[in-house]
Amino acid sequence: MEAKPYVLGIDMGGTNTVFGIVDARGQVIARSSIKTQAYPDIDEYIAELTKEITRIADPVGGVEKIRGIGAGCPNGNYYTGNIEKAPNLPWKGIVPFAKLLSDSLGIPAVLTNDANAAAMGEMTYGAARGMKNFIEITLGTGVGSGIVIDGKVVYGHDGFAGELGHTKIVRQNGRLCGCGQSGCIEAYASATGVARTARELIETTNEPSLLRDLQAETITSKDVFDAAEKGDRLAKKIFDMTGRMLGEKFADFITFSAPEAIILFGGMTKSGHWIMDPIVEAMNENVMPIWKDKVKVLFSDLPESDAAVLGSSALAWELN
Amino acid sequence: MEAKPYVLGIDMGGTNTVFGIVDARGQVIARSSIKTQAYPDIDEYIAELTKEITRIADPVGGVEKIRGIGAGCPNGNYYTGNIEKAPNLPWKGIVPFAKLLSDSLGIPAVLTNDANAAAMGEMTYGAARGMKNFIEITLGTGVGSGIVIDGKVVYGHDGFAGELGHTKIVRQNGRLCGCGQSGCIEAYASATGVARTARELIETTNEPSLLRDLQAETITSKDVFDAAEKGDRLAKKIFDMTGRMLGEKFADFITFSAPEAIILFGGMTKSGHWIMDPIVEAMNENVMPIWKDKVKVLFSDLPESDAAVLGSSALAWELN
Repeated sequence: MEAKPYVLGIDMGGTNTVFGIVDARGQVIARSSIKTQAYPDIDEYIAELTKEITRIADPVGGVEKIRGIGAGCPNGNYYTGNIEKAPNLPWKGIVPFAKLLSDSLGIPAVLTNDANAAAMGEMTYGAARGMKNFIEITLGTGVGSGIVIDGKVVYGHDGFAGELGHTKIVRQNGRLCGCGQSGCIEAYASATGVARTARELIETTNEPSLLRDLQAETITSKDVFDAAEKGDRLAKKIFDMTGRMLGEKFADFITFSAPEAIILFGGMTKSGHWIMDPIVEAMNENVMPIWKDKVKVLFSDLPESDAAVLGSSALAWELN
Repeated sequence: MEAKPYVLGIDMGGTNTVFGIVDARGQVIARSSIKTQAYPDIDEYIAELTKEITRIADPVGGVEKIRGIGAGCPNGNYYTGNIEKAPNLPWKGIVPFAKLLSDSLGIPAVLTNDANAAAMGEMTYGAARGMKNFIEITLGTGVGSGIVIDGKVVYGHDGFAGELGHTKIVRQNGRLCGCGQSGCIEAYASATGVARTARELIETTNEPSLLRDLQAETITSKDVFDAAEKGDRLAKKIFDMTGRMLGEKFADFITFSAPEAIILFGGMTKSGHWIMDPIVEAMNENVMPIWKDKVKVLFSDLPESDAAVLGSSALAWELN
């Protein structure tokens, strides 16, 4: 058996930091988490993370059995290992996270953003096994992307490539997006975008809907799904609008890297065929003839509970 | 001196096929051309091309001094070496051009489309020397693109990646594009798109313009440039609309591959600041804050008369 048979995957979110020790077959053999927001001082955060990683590594032979650490972090820069000006994290400015954690544990560490981590996970353990060219689209609170070309995640000149959620779908009077621009696909096709579409349609139409029984400001994309499952026409219309917008953008994305597949990851994928059918329809209506009906759209098959940790850990296998 | 110090570059167009022998410093040391349309039989075309290449190679030591052939061809597929269903060439279906020419001359040959060839040329001899991540945009009869990531042209799963001219800029009632879709940026920002915008503005407005002195159906992008140079407001407005559309699309392109620069190549670049200023303005207005004022937009500095041959020849240096 190899001296260092494991990698560590970290999924850092604004609320929690979840991590796990992963073996070469993609099994998470130990896991834990700490509260990100509880450590306004980065040094305290690193100390607590080190302590907890050391604790869960103990039963498998200690941290010296871990070959490398991969972390998916908001605004994580693969080239520098820094977290750069992440609005939802407690630490401001530029945080040299990879270096701090690597120094603290004595293990090489690499980081990227969560969508790129998902793409790596998909290629290593998921629906993109065997694919060299695909695009991972994460549909959650936001819309993220990880682009894989010739088997490698695209980082670009500065390390921040792959922000397809911030390409425009509406060019005139589009919704304000969290990035500061207007009309980005993220403002429409994220879970929050879908909820907003629901509220807008309730306010601006008279169409009867189960969604009208809910308090408008509490409606979530899950409520829209539940209503669609019950045959609610307005709910179906919301998914149709959202899916068609995504499909139109996918047609644009295909012209860039001519992927074998576009793979959907994240909470919104639970909407199943309600979101998938209009995506595929609009994508094939809008793509150049050479790609019509040729590019697959697939749901991620990373195991849901461990997907983020697995994705991040996949980065670490590339560390020598 | 090396046994095989030269490469051959071929620029195949619907009308002419231009080719030249290029040395390692990017000097075209011999050149010629044949009429593409004069050979409806591909075998006759290959025979004539072989004869003419052999003739110009004679003074520099013969075709055995040529290491490889790079060809930029409409619908050229880098992976297969085939020209696939090119609408403007005399040969229908799939033509195994690289194999036919290679067999005929006894020299390895590789091909791609003209925009990818321009990107290779830019990186080898032009404005992208030293860059690893950039996007070449060709503004001519059409709008093409060659995307370079980590020093390599992106070909994608099928060999046809990099068709950014066919991403949408207008989603409702857009102009019909040559590709069969509607609203593509090519339908607005190509030389023919600019001429069409001129005709539309002449017909739908009363704004005085020097362009009204011309026959509407004969107006070219060159006429619009000449009018702008003379202070014509309508002509300036045409460039402003066109440049802003391009800039808005460039903001989307940046989210994909985070390039160091976007480089403009082709006839429309003669419009200089009339097209450049609105591009840069709209790009920076529409891009995510992390890229604002960070991505360069440059004109190609490949020598104009030899640019296409140089670009194609650059492909051949990569052959063993």
